Amino acid sequence: MPRVTEDHLAARRREILDGARKCFAQYGYDKATVRRLEQTIGLSRGAIFHHFKDKDTLFFELAHEDAERMADVAAREGLVQVMRDMLAAPEQFDWLATRLEIARKLRTDPVFNKGWAERSAELSAATTERLRRQKQAGRLREDVPSEVLQTYLDLVLDGLVARLASGDDTERLGAVLDLVEASVRQR
Amino acid sequence: MPRVTEDHLAARRREILDGARKCFAQYGYDKATVRRLEQTIGLSRGAIFHHFKDKDTLFFELAHEDAERMADVAAREGLVQVMRDMLAAPEQFDWLATRLEIARKLRTDPVFNKGWAERSAELSAATTERLRRQKQAGRLREDVPSEVLQTYLDLVLDGLVARLASGDDTERLGAVLDLVEASVRQR
Repeated sequence: MPRVTEDHLAARRREILDGARKCFAQYGYDKATVRRLEQTIGLSRGAIFHHFKDKDTLFFELAHEDAERMADVAAREGLVQVMRDMLAAPEQFDWLATRLEIARKLRTDPVFNKGWAERSAELSAATTERLRRQKQAGRLREDVPSEVLQTYLDLVLDGLVARLASGDDTERLGAVLDLVEASVRQR
Repeated sequence: MPRVTEDHLAARRREILDGARKCFAQYGYDKATVRRLEQTIGLSRGAIFHHFKDKDTLFFELAHEDAERMADVAAREGLVQVMRDMLAAPEQFDWLATRLEIARKLRTDPVFNKGWAERSAELSAATTERLRRQKQAGRLREDVPSEVLQTYLDLVLDGLVARLASGDDTERLGAVLDLVEASVRQR
């Protein structure tokens, strides 16, 4: 493909993803209808779905971008740092709320669950690898299996998202993350 | 009021609440429309809203019933036991998902937030009181303020709800709750 066309394609995809993220953040997963996606992105459904198969594909791609970014932080500094970054970015809280809104769908819609899991796998893999290295370095508590520590951190992440999306005071949540961090460490 | 009328009123309210809980559990907060509430409850909107002002009043009343039940357990056995009870009641997971679906509304709609907070206050009070007594008895860790421990437990509760509503494996979550329980205790 000629370079100019490639660049144009990438720019168009970026434009669609940025608009879609705003739309999901504003209306929530369910109420971000195709009509609203058109309005927020500023393109017709034909143009949008030429680049992304459907609404869920768009949504998964955004989740994938998050997972990549979070996996990068998790690999270097751990999942608790990912959470500290969340705390520090209130402009993300609206988008974070969509993670909660899909819980029911994740449990009851196997195709959706698979699509979501595939696009979030990187974060999970990065956390597993980081915990493995921390354990090797003797920084992780030994009395609890690593899988349990990982599930614990995943649960805390979900809880943090819920508190932030509900408008909880972020100051006290910082102290909670200190407690969480200490509770997975070797004493 | 004559006794027979009182009994009738109470039975009618119970009928409406049970039907509404099923409806919210099945469709989620947003999609539990007045039309669907009528169908699931088996009464007209006139009959329903004669007893409860509107959809949100119904929803808050159900949240209040939960909070009362949970406060009772929290006062006697602590918030972690409330969570263990949740784990053991998969038939509740659909209803629990509604707690996540309202996060955005809690943050952006002050009237809704106030209504919800008022109806859930009992649980929070019961947890505060239980933590106070545990601290007095020397069973609570001393290096972290009680308010932080309470926020931590609230966050874990939200995280647990999110994992259950998403269909997470409940077996590993039991071990996570052991870890949570140990992390608030005096060592």
